[in-house]
Amino acid sequence: MKKVGIIMGSDSDLPVVTKAVNVLKELGVPYEVHIFSAHRTPGEAAAYAANAADSGFGVLIGVAGMAAHLAGALAAQTVLPVIGIPCKSSVLDGMDALLSTVQMPSGVPVATVAIDSGANAALLSAEILALGEPELAQKLRERRRSDADKVRAKDADIAAQL
Amino acid sequence: MKKVGIIMGSDSDLPVVTKAVNVLKELGVPYEVHIFSAHRTPGEAAAYAANAADSGFGVLIGVAGMAAHLAGALAAQTVLPVIGIPCKSSVLDGMDALLSTVQMPSGVPVATVAIDSGANAALLSAEILALGEPELAQKLRERRRSDADKVRAKDADIAAQL
Amino acid sequence: MKKVGIIMGSDSDLPVVTKAVNVLKELGVPYEVHIFSAHRTPGEAAAYAANAADSGFGVLIGVAGMAAHLAGALAAQTVLPVIGIPCKSSVLDGMDALLSTVQMPSGVPVATVAIDSGANAALLSAEILALGEPELAQKLRERRRSDADKVRAKDADIAAQL
Amino acid sequence: MKKVGIIMGSDSDLPVVTKAVNVLKELGVPYEVHIFSAHRTPGEAAAYAANAADSGFGVLIGVAGMAAHLAGALAAQTVLPVIGIPCKSSVLDGMDALLSTVQMPSGVPVATVAIDSGANAALLSAEILALGEPELAQKLRERRRSDADKVRAKDADIAAQL
Amino acid sequence: MKKVGIIMGSDSDLPVVTKAVNVLKELGVPYEVHIFSAHRTPGEAAAYAANAADSGFGVLIGVAGMAAHLAGALAAQTVLPVIGIPCKSSVLDGMDALLSTVQMPSGVPVATVAIDSGANAALLSAEILALGEPELAQKLRERRRSDADKVRAKDADIAAQL
Amino acid sequence: MKKVGIIMGSDSDLPVVTKAVNVLKELGVPYEVHIFSAHRTPGEAAAYAANAADSGFGVLIGVAGMAAHLAGALAAQTVLPVIGIPCKSSVLDGMDALLSTVQMPSGVPVATVAIDSGANAALLSAEILALGEPELAQKLRERRRSDADKVRAKDADIAAQL
Amino acid sequence: MKKVGIIMGSDSDLPVVTKAVNVLKELGVPYEVHIFSAHRTPGEAAAYAANAADSGFGVLIGVAGMAAHLAGALAAQTVLPVIGIPCKSSVLDGMDALLSTVQMPSGVPVATVAIDSGANAALLSAEILALGEPELAQKLRERRRSDADKVRAKDADIAAQL
Amino acid sequence: MKKVGIIMGSDSDLPVVTKAVNVLKELGVPYEVHIFSAHRTPGEAAAYAANAADSGFGVLIGVAGMAAHLAGALAAQTVLPVIGIPCKSSVLDGMDALLSTVQMPSGVPVATVAIDSGANAALLSAEILALGEPELAQKLRERRRSDADKVRAKDADIAAQL
Repeated sequence: MKKVGIIMGSDSDLPVVTKAVNVLKELGVPYEVHIFSAHRTPGEAAAYAANAADSGFGVLIGVAGMAAHLAGALAAQTVLPVIGIPCKSSVLDGMDALLSTVQMPSGVPVATVAIDSGANAALLSAEILALGEPELAQKLRERRRSDADKVRAKDADIAAQL
Repeated sequence: MKKVGIIMGSDSDLPVVTKAVNVLKELGVPYEVHIFSAHRTPGEAAAYAANAADSGFGVLIGVAGMAAHLAGALAAQTVLPVIGIPCKSSVLDGMDALLSTVQMPSGVPVATVAIDSGANAALLSAEILALGEPELAQKLRERRRSDADKVRAKDADIAAQL
Repeated sequence: MKKVGIIMGSDSDLPVVTKAVNVLKELGVPYEVHIFSAHRTPGEAAAYAANAADSGFGVLIGVAGMAAHLAGALAAQTVLPVIGIPCKSSVLDGMDALLSTVQMPSGVPVATVAIDSGANAALLSAEILALGEPELAQKLRERRRSDADKVRAKDADIAAQL
Repeated sequence: MKKVGIIMGSDSDLPVVTKAVNVLKELGVPYEVHIFSAHRTPGEAAAYAANAADSGFGVLIGVAGMAAHLAGALAAQTVLPVIGIPCKSSVLDGMDALLSTVQMPSGVPVATVAIDSGANAALLSAEILALGEPELAQKLRERRRSDADKVRAKDADIAAQL
Repeated sequence: MKKVGIIMGSDSDLPVVTKAVNVLKELGVPYEVHIFSAHRTPGEAAAYAANAADSGFGVLIGVAGMAAHLAGALAAQTVLPVIGIPCKSSVLDGMDALLSTVQMPSGVPVATVAIDSGANAALLSAEILALGEPELAQKLRERRRSDADKVRAKDADIAAQL
Repeated sequence: MKKVGIIMGSDSDLPVVTKAVNVLKELGVPYEVHIFSAHRTPGEAAAYAANAADSGFGVLIGVAGMAAHLAGALAAQTVLPVIGIPCKSSVLDGMDALLSTVQMPSGVPVATVAIDSGANAALLSAEILALGEPELAQKLRERRRSDADKVRAKDADIAAQL
Repeated sequence: MKKVGIIMGSDSDLPVVTKAVNVLKELGVPYEVHIFSAHRTPGEAAAYAANAADSGFGVLIGVAGMAAHLAGALAAQTVLPVIGIPCKSSVLDGMDALLSTVQMPSGVPVATVAIDSGANAALLSAEILALGEPELAQKLRERRRSDADKVRAKDADIAAQL
Repeated sequence: MKKVGIIMGSDSDLPVVTKAVNVLKELGVPYEVHIFSAHRTPGEAAAYAANAADSGFGVLIGVAGMAAHLAGALAAQTVLPVIGIPCKSSVLDGMDALLSTVQMPSGVPVATVAIDSGANAALLSAEILALGEPELAQKLRERRRSDADKVRAKDADIAAQL
């Protein structure tokens, strides 16, 4: 299976990345995690993205806050699908990162998920890889069923609580 | 090649959809276009998404404005990757649609692109399909090179204009 | 009396739902509480709303955060009045949920109340049912008088405090 | 059938009110239209709302822009359900009116619909009245079916256009 | 000297009102404090404002959060200058109250100060009354000088700290 | 009667100032209009405000867009009440000017009115001056009555139109 | 004198760049204009910035809209001061570009000016270069005086117009 | 070397200023720190800026929250480059200060950095001074390299953690 490359701009994004990693582990999707900064180590970020297809990656995930350029900088270097996770930082509740990630100019898309949503970025990357991996698609469908069952179980219990 | 299913919530979204269709045609990606409303024909939208994988689709694109629930409603029914295009309507410049599309709860991702960005949704869908289609990947790389060459040509001309 | 159906998208919305339930209990309005997710158990949510009129419900209340599609998904299935409570989640202070709930397209209204306002959703549902229940209308008028008296009592005390 | 009272704060809101009136006419719901301003004729607005239940009204709709206090001022005087339509004015795209209308304090709800959405306010008022009017409920269900059929017809035509 | 009437919509606004009261006490400006709600006791609020000029008031201050209609409701009943203090409540950081207070329609102004700024509302009311009270004007000028001196003292100390 | 000093930051604010001037003329309030820029002629703006009380002014109105510092700069120099009109410029719909005008730090208030609301700034200045001018207060009350009558006349006509 | 390098992300930014160029011409500051895209020709943008100091540049100006990464991408490659002009595009009035430009992470600053403010970016670059160019500083002071005189001339004329 | 003048509007901005001072100390850039308020001691602020060039300053930094006029007030008095740091205060997360700082009118630029970003303001001031100080430029390049090395070291460690 192709790998997912998760690149965070700073280790302050680790809690969000951990959520993504946990989902990928659960689904058995191979991944690599790096810290490359669009502004402090732009060369590494660009080179990694430029070589990603040849290095066996199928999807990249860029994780950054504030003027979150990382996912866009990765996307500029590859035609692999690039997912962006905008992160909340100390002000503005992640709105700066959301707009910096999603409002990409025509020609270079970034697949943006909800603010801080490490889990959804991982699931989206798995959905993409699953197009060529029927077993992974099956796992994703089972996860959905399991999620639905959890909701149903909570629904069954709720009447008693209120 | 798997198909891209483009679903718009209303025919007022047609200009955005046309931009997506033009890119898919240019890249030779097979597609289908539908008008299903998350609120007026929710059953059709759900059934289409639920059957999409078995009907030969590889990616779905939901296109909607205001409280843009369409992409999320499609994503709820399939583990295919679902792309959301938030559309500008008569007020709020598409911010309502952006937040309604991107802020999906954990478990059901929508890959959101920029407001009204039909072209980027199409390119993202092509990038996803290209993981299993080397020729399409090649076309995408060529398109990037061509885009870059256009920028370079404009750069070469700009000095004379100012 | 017809019942009020309260549907929350996740048990994290329970504090808001509890405020609604307390008001309905106080007014003697019959209710049912469920956890149905617009994205994780969309079929249950749709079926519940589609059958709500025949099952003795007069009003539905959808309670959800983030890209809060739940009230809209319920409204798509019934011509009963549907009230939406947008909930604050970890970012954006509920603005995402507010816009996702209130900005419904023409044809399918959601009666939206203030962010996290479980009490007002319950009162609005009671006001609606009270059109056919003079006793309930009387209780609502008394509650207003009692609320006013509490304000008056506080006003009488305030001068001494400042 | 009980009447719907539509109160606009200024005749600049007439286009929005007209959309509401057209829907009520189509559904055969009796209505009255007034111009009362929460700030210029507050007494009239208050008196009208205070007497509305006794005058045969079942629902009030307040229509206003900017610091849109009208729906809240009506709601303060009656336990009839009050619907608020926030209107776009020359700046801020109606966001001021939306927050002024929906963010009501606990105890006095306003059922808020989308910015400028006269049609949805009328439909919501009809849904409320229809709880006691089976024929009106039937008309609403037919309108939904007709709306759905229009979407289906457009869907049937769309493939040929793209 | 004419009095300042401070009206808060709820006792949750007391910390903001206390800041205003402290400034008025310091300046020797007579005041009265009330709790009147634009929605729970609208009659009291309206009557108080309508009689304010005859009761010896020179300025009214309305203090409220959320859909903050109070200052506007007071202003609708009097041609005395009315100051509005928008208060932060549990969500949206007071932006809802700010827009509800400041965006008044033409004809009925509210003099709006910063979110939660009880001190500035009091100072503004004193500035207004001081037009006819030279001694109060003198106190305000002295307060400004004292404020400036405090800044100067801090400036003199800061170099040593850094 | 004391004069109203209207200071605009740029002649692009003239349409807003004209609305203010028309109201002052109608009420017979003496006024002076100036163009002083907080950033281009800060000395003039400061000197004018510092001397305003001695020059017979009772109120100053600062009119500016973008980072609208003018009203605050005037207020820093006088204890006369200063009214701020935030103006819409080419982007952001006046939200930048509103926050720059209203969010004044403790100690130096600016009485802020709605975006572009020249009329309300003029009315507020008249309300302030009217505390010492019973005839002006009478004119303001008559204007309110006349405004109310216009609304009543429109209300009387509206039923025929819909 | 060192040169100013103006880099725009797309030729749609030309009107903003033209304003900057006109100011630099007027001040006699040497400049170069390029079109480099942070996403379509990232290598050119990076190389240009990396070599800028050695090529005789003293300041770079990045001009871009939407998820405006250009100024940040330039700043990542040089310790020359980099100025960012956020541009308004078809939605959101430039708020996306403003946040993408100004909210840079610690370590890599971008000197951000107002949305679309080509003139201020040029003036800021001239102010920076003028630290080592007394003649340019003199021209800037004269320009300020001339700007002030224009305001004074308009102020002298305004009374006659109102 | 020319000095950097750091002016904060209030000692509540001290934590942000401290970050700036630490960076300047580390780089060996001479600086002075003052507390001048645009509204409480406007004369001092203006005089300081007007004399700054003659007093050996090369850059000024204005640090303020809310309606943050300080940087603009400094910029109005000098053609030295002025940097603005918008500070977060108790509400609105610094958005008020950001817009008040960055949206300067044409003619008087303020080089705005991220909300609360004392470090970036200091670095930008050093980048400006470094145009005439090759040794400082060298220190800045080394700091960038060191920052990059820190990111690389964290990247080397991250794989082991996840």
